[in-house]
Amino acid sequence: LRVADIGNTNVKLWEDGKISRVRIEEFRPSGKAFYISVNRKFVEIEDWVNLEEFVKVNTIYKGLGVDRKVAILGESNRIVVDMGSAITVDIVKDGLHIGGYILLGKKSIVEKFRENIPHLQFGKEKFGDEVPQNTEDALYFGYLHPIVSLLQKLQKEFQLPILVTGGDYEDLKKFFPEAQFSPNLIFEKIFKLLPELSRIEE
Amino acid sequence: LRVADIGNTNVKLWEDGKISRVRIEEFRPSGKAFYISVNRKFVEIEDWVNLEEFVKVNTIYKGLGVDRKVAILGESNRIVVDMGSAITVDIVKDGLHIGGYILLGKKSIVEKFRENIPHLQFGKEKFGDEVPQNTEDALYFGYLHPIVSLLQKLQKEFQLPILVTGGDYEDLKKFFPEAQFSPNLIFEKIFKLLPELSRIEE
Repeated sequence: LRVADIGNTNVKLWEDGKISRVRIEEFRPSGKAFYISVNRKFVEIEDWVNLEEFVKVNTIYKGLGVDRKVAILGESNRIVVDMGSAITVDIVKDGLHIGGYILLGKKSIVEKFRENIPHLQFGKEKFGDEVPQNTEDALYFGYLHPIVSLLQKLQKEFQLPILVTGGDYEDLKKFFPEAQFSPNLIFEKIFKLLPELSRIEE
Repeated sequence: LRVADIGNTNVKLWEDGKISRVRIEEFRPSGKAFYISVNRKFVEIEDWVNLEEFVKVNTIYKGLGVDRKVAILGESNRIVVDMGSAITVDIVKDGLHIGGYILLGKKSIVEKFRENIPHLQFGKEKFGDEVPQNTEDALYFGYLHPIVSLLQKLQKEFQLPILVTGGDYEDLKKFFPEAQFSPNLIFEKIFKLLPELSRIEE
């Protein structure tokens, strides 16, 4: 069984339990696989099965990406956060997806700062609520504290538990110790579609 | 009188009351001027007077950029926000600068998203507290709501009034109607150094 999650900068591949990541420029689909794709260059792939039509969510949001649809599959009351190359935040309240946010992910922020200001050093993973007192921390917490503040505000407003996925999920761990962290959420949710998948395979 | 504020992406020039902006790649210093610079390529400029040594602030932050020092000049109790090509947030409490944040500015965020996802449309200036329900708004408020949430949190924590400058200052106006907005804050603050300047000119 092979499953692919095709994004705009990376492709994540699940192959018999092993997960690998390929940069989109180097991605060459081969063999057979099930996949979801938000990348307009990979809408239809020969011999591959696009799962988008099986992903049904109840939303008032127009144009929700299939990756975000998959992330909220089966959730009734949740704030789902994907800390990937883009950060997405999606709110499901009483079974209805009421909207969400798209932010640049950490890697993109670091790349863009480096482009403008080559000598800047971006701080390493750390935890703290204090106002940063040097440039490394000002950059790292300049990425992290705004998204943390937004999530705290949304959590308070909607009274919902948080579910986090995506490569940088650990950055949120100490700020939301009570949240659920599922680094491979997209694949886990895709496997919930397995009954549908097996019907196709027949 | 000519004054220049040299950043990493732009130079802002004040020339006898007229303000102009030059992209850093096109910036060729000529004549005479007073200036501040955070750009390592423009530390010393022939015939120009670097004002950095006259900018004295009381801070526990290591490596504070001269533009941020100028922005907080004379402030004793303030959150100073520069909505420029980078967004900086600086907190002065009881006469002491206790730290701050550096975030990507709106233009950089838009540019980076376009690089990764060419078809994305970034929403236009608008106001709202609601969770976005389409991708344009998810991107625009994905830039704006996190910084707004951070500022609301800081304002609550430190009980300080907000002062906003920088090209995108208007994005914060409806969220902080009681804040002070000074698009040309850097030049206004530099002019407060005028007594020092005139002594040099002699």
